[in-house]
Amino acid sequence: MTLESAAAASRPDDDLFARVPDAVSIYEVSPRDGLQNESTLISVDGKRRLIDALVASGLRRIEITSFVSPKWVPQLADAEELARAIRPPEGVTYSALCPNARGLERALSAGLTEIAVFLSASEAHNRANINKTIADTLSVFSEIVPPAREAGLQVRAYVSTVWGCPYEGAVDPARVVQIAEKLLELGCYQISLGDTIGVGNPRQTREIVRRFLDAMPVERFALHMHDTRGTALANVLTALEMGVRDFDASVGGVGGCPYAPGAAGNLATEDLVYMLHGMGLETGIDLEKLLEAGNVAEQVIGRPLPGKVHKAGPFRLRRSPTRH
Amino acid sequence: MTLESAAAASRPDDDLFARVPDAVSIYEVSPRDGLQNESTLISVDGKRRLIDALVASGLRRIEITSFVSPKWVPQLADAEELARAIRPPEGVTYSALCPNARGLERALSAGLTEIAVFLSASEAHNRANINKTIADTLSVFSEIVPPAREAGLQVRAYVSTVWGCPYEGAVDPARVVQIAEKLLELGCYQISLGDTIGVGNPRQTREIVRRFLDAMPVERFALHMHDTRGTALANVLTALEMGVRDFDASVGGVGGCPYAPGAAGNLATEDLVYMLHGMGLETGIDLEKLLEAGNVAEQVIGRPLPGKVHKAGPFRLRRSPTRH
Repeated sequence: MTLESAAAASRPDDDLFARVPDAVSIYEVSPRDGLQNESTLISVDGKRRLIDALVASGLRRIEITSFVSPKWVPQLADAEELARAIRPPEGVTYSALCPNARGLERALSAGLTEIAVFLSASEAHNRANINKTIADTLSVFSEIVPPAREAGLQVRAYVSTVWGCPYEGAVDPARVVQIAEKLLELGCYQISLGDTIGVGNPRQTREIVRRFLDAMPVERFALHMHDTRGTALANVLTALEMGVRDFDASVGGVGGCPYAPGAAGNLATEDLVYMLHGMGLETGIDLEKLLEAGNVAEQVIGRPLPGKVHKAGPFRLRRSPTRH
Repeated sequence: MTLESAAAASRPDDDLFARVPDAVSIYEVSPRDGLQNESTLISVDGKRRLIDALVASGLRRIEITSFVSPKWVPQLADAEELARAIRPPEGVTYSALCPNARGLERALSAGLTEIAVFLSASEAHNRANINKTIADTLSVFSEIVPPAREAGLQVRAYVSTVWGCPYEGAVDPARVVQIAEKLLELGCYQISLGDTIGVGNPRQTREIVRRFLDAMPVERFALHMHDTRGTALANVLTALEMGVRDFDASVGGVGGCPYAPGAAGNLATEDLVYMLHGMGLETGIDLEKLLEAGNVAEQVIGRPLPGKVHKAGPFRLRRSPTRH
């Protein structure tokens, strides 16, 4: 090593990536969060094809459906039929959203081993989404999370509008930490923090992640970023630099929150994996097979999907052209 | 301050943004790089409307056209007419690409005060793009950059394919630094480093930026990122964290490199400004007026533009809905 390179090696930007984890766990939401806004009903077989393709890519945690009322989300009215029709291979977990005791019953009867509960960090969005106050929603959860745990289920929780609420604007991160702590107390193993309307920036992400790192171990929370304004991967990068290792994504970038007006753009799983692999992080995912899963999603949904790597593909060498 | 918040204040992630600059300078490329791939010819008046809207938004450095052969880029055959028809307001610089001595003559005759030269970091892309070796291209520049400086012009330089070449794959950053140093010696004031095919990731960006910081003052280089695979703002963030303060962008995300097959997706100026302002950085730009400039670009070009903030808009409070 020359003196010059030794000097370079000690530059302070070495520290930028010092806490980036070696491996990241991706929680795939396309079958539920992705499909629930699609107005064209997709068959159980179509959903099964998508889920099989996701599993084949190496994804190990997949949210397959939601036990909400079929009146709310007609696309997911086949929740029991789908959950009964497929069984996760060894090492793979299928989960489903459960809003209430009836949903838990349906999840148990369908043989699921993991469920997810959900609420918003802002009162107005929570009311718009599930027509309850946050306190009343937590009361409902206190009636389903402990029984679910006793029945042997893992329970994950979503907190949405953490980076901003479409009706209230700014959301106090201290309040979000309080909600998350309550959810952990109830028995949830991980809290997924959502930028539901895709407004977050890296400085805000640093502030939110810091508060969570101060309050709980890093594995207790995940980030669920939307790419509505192009900032999803920049926010993910900031979280990685702080050691966060759990991220939600949706193949092809399909889906978003149905109750946030104008919202669009789950972070595409392919875009996330492309960046993580480029940075040398392990995900357990085969990007080529993930791209195939995105193609299956596009076929099943029947319209072009917005994910960027889905559209552009990964880097592949081209033959040198004749000049044009 | 409580003990707890004092502890939080000394966390090592404080250092993450320690070198992020307070202000960033954006070099707008839409009238040239954005329009040159459009097959429908746009009138001088349409281009003038776009440039006026960009100036009204607060942009101060705008590349308005290219003095390449009209046979190469028919869209920019009106370069002299456009350059003569508009004059930059006080404090605003209009520049134009110049590939050779003839281009310089045309730029001088049209009254421009800044030009830009361009080449690739990889031989195969340089040959595909301008049909010369890199050494021969630098020889041409040695015949136009010093005379341009003597005539009172500022000269900027683009080096493309820095993050990867579509024909050669990996590009050695040490070679890029050598090319950039040669360009500075010739009299260029700033080197814009391009991720021409949009393959870059933050770890690679850190490596490239570090080599440049080791070789020259930070104001001597800029980053020109493409968002082809969704990583543009994550790459920008890494560069910001290392103190870089010059970035190229194109309103609405229009344009890319015409000679890189499959390439698309200049970083949208609105997306960049949205993130920078969210992080508290100054750009001198009014985002609302920039969105209006994006609308003008869309009208002038006559098709929807891909920029995410262009599509989604910035955050705006919504009225609380009745639940649906």
